[in-house]
Amino acid sequence: MKVVVCRNLGEDAVGILKAKKELDLVVWPGPDDKAADRRWLLENVEGAVGVIVMLTDKVDDELLDAAGPSLRVVSTMSVGYEHVDLKAVGRRGLKLGYTPDVLTEAVADLCIMLALMASRVNNGVSIVQAGTWRDYSWKPFGFCGPQLSTTSPSQTRTAGFLGFGRIAQATLRRLVPFGITHVLYSGNPGSPPDSERDAALQTQHNLRELRKVDLKELARESDVLFVLAPGGPSTYHVVNEEFLREMKETAVLVNASRGTLVDSEALAEALGRERPRPFGAGLDVVEGEPNVGAEHPLVKEPRCVIVPHVASATFETRTAMATRAAYNLVGALFDEPMPSSVDLSSFQ
Amino acid sequence: MKVVVCRNLGEDAVGILKAKKELDLVVWPGPDDKAADRRWLLENVEGAVGVIVMLTDKVDDELLDAAGPSLRVVSTMSVGYEHVDLKAVGRRGLKLGYTPDVLTEAVADLCIMLALMASRVNNGVSIVQAGTWRDYSWKPFGFCGPQLSTTSPSQTRTAGFLGFGRIAQATLRRLVPFGITHVLYSGNPGSPPDSERDAALQTQHNLRELRKVDLKELARESDVLFVLAPGGPSTYHVVNEEFLREMKETAVLVNASRGTLVDSEALAEALGRERPRPFGAGLDVVEGEPNVGAEHPLVKEPRCVIVPHVASATFETRTAMATRAAYNLVGALFDEPMPSSVDLSSFQ
Repeated sequence: MKVVVCRNLGEDAVGILKAKKELDLVVWPGPDDKAADRRWLLENVEGAVGVIVMLTDKVDDELLDAAGPSLRVVSTMSVGYEHVDLKAVGRRGLKLGYTPDVLTEAVADLCIMLALMASRVNNGVSIVQAGTWRDYSWKPFGFCGPQLSTTSPSQTRTAGFLGFGRIAQATLRRLVPFGITHVLYSGNPGSPPDSERDAALQTQHNLRELRKVDLKELARESDVLFVLAPGGPSTYHVVNEEFLREMKETAVLVNASRGTLVDSEALAEALGRERPRPFGAGLDVVEGEPNVGAEHPLVKEPRCVIVPHVASATFETRTAMATRAAYNLVGALFDEPMPSSVDLSSFQ
Repeated sequence: MKVVVCRNLGEDAVGILKAKKELDLVVWPGPDDKAADRRWLLENVEGAVGVIVMLTDKVDDELLDAAGPSLRVVSTMSVGYEHVDLKAVGRRGLKLGYTPDVLTEAVADLCIMLALMASRVNNGVSIVQAGTWRDYSWKPFGFCGPQLSTTSPSQTRTAGFLGFGRIAQATLRRLVPFGITHVLYSGNPGSPPDSERDAALQTQHNLRELRKVDLKELARESDVLFVLAPGGPSTYHVVNEEFLREMKETAVLVNASRGTLVDSEALAEALGRERPRPFGAGLDVVEGEPNVGAEHPLVKEPRCVIVPHVASATFETRTAMATRAAYNLVGALFDEPMPSSVDLSSFQ
């Protein structure tokens, strides 16, 4: 039972695969930071029963034909499956595993980091890096930004979520001790608010308010706004010039979902004006990444902090994703449960 | 009643002073980012009843003599008063105001940011800044660091605090939803642990353990370690080679107190070795700051994130410090309560 593995998945995941003696593992022998060579993959996948892929490996008719009728499962070490032709996989009656949920906590951590950096870093890191700390004398309001936390119980803070799924709720949990008092969210306009869940969350976190609002109110009222909705055409540039114009001068914007939700030009323009609005932005994703060079308007903008799509990049979470990918494959091949599989019934 | 103010304190604080019609304000007319010129200060302070100073303004016999017998209060917009000769102030029977407590929440916010950055930034910000994002292909463990939060309820996380005062406790409050299970702290070896408070905190935050330990155990057990103790000779280089050698390879170190507590050479050496220990560091303060140039070993070390002493740098907190300084001065001059004064009875 040949299984092709497109990258070194680390000891834990490889251990799970090796524990099944029936499996004959063929692992991409190239360096970790190179996607499996397409020609290597097409040659080696022939006769395989399963394949473990990454976001970097296109799963299409070409690959599936190369594997042939022996193939029973495709397991991707990723939450997204934009790289997988669902129709091609479903039509062949294959199973498809993916790795949702396990990265919730890591992404929520990063959301808090970016919210803080967007208001507090203010170029401070670059100044120290450049060796010019000594040129900045202390001044009463030097390096200042808006404060994420409240400084007294009489103050309020509104957290906004564009998209209010698992990651947003894990982020909210972390925000509570900072003194967040109000929570607003926007979601799929077609789906009604889940008032039972909302009431439960409001009570659990002792909030004065938690409710679904339209985009305009979300933009206008949020002190810190997290973009955590799926990508795709329906959310394309949802954060645009009009949205940004509504935001507070003291607000910060965080995007840890997909770059396409934020209009980069409009954000750079909003941050670069004399009275910036919002105050700052923290981005894990940028439209067109990784082709985001030093001349990109957001890279040049000092009020914008960018990290290179690292929201799930912790040893614990990537190990959990790799082991989940391994269990998905093993489950499909040995008639054990698959922890996370994509429902392909509509394609079969 | 002349009052000399050494920097522009912002509208709120100036409003408090101006509301007292008896006061004749003399405000340093230079730019905000320059400390009041010493000569200007010595000339203008003559005959003043009060003076509002910053960390940058030395309060010594020279200044107090220049003011003369009219002087009744010195109010500093700072928590520390290393710049004030307490004996000289106390001997003259003057009152001394300062601004503690009001910066607790801002500093705790920064502690969380630095803890996250120390494990998650991994040079990612510089890579994007340099325009080389496109050169880094995705790999399963690329850009990875240890995760601050737990990923399942079966995991544990130990937060360590070197110094366990108000800021440490405000930081702990923020850490709880990240899944912190154990808290260890070290403090003044002479003072016994406050077991009633510790038990209350353990219950409040639902921790499995909260206790005072020696430095060696603190270094050895902490997954994230916050240095939040006062400066001075008794804590000089308390984080030294020996301390760092005990730390976990997955731990991160945060210093938001005073630069002198951490031996910079030892930390750079510990982070720079083949198997770094701890994993990373986030510093708001560095010994010898702001004379920390591009050639400083910690600035050159990619596992070290440094921000230029901005822990209290939020509009809200600096405004609160400035207004507190104004109220301290007004309180002393008009026999109203002084919100925060230094006890100088031992010098009188």
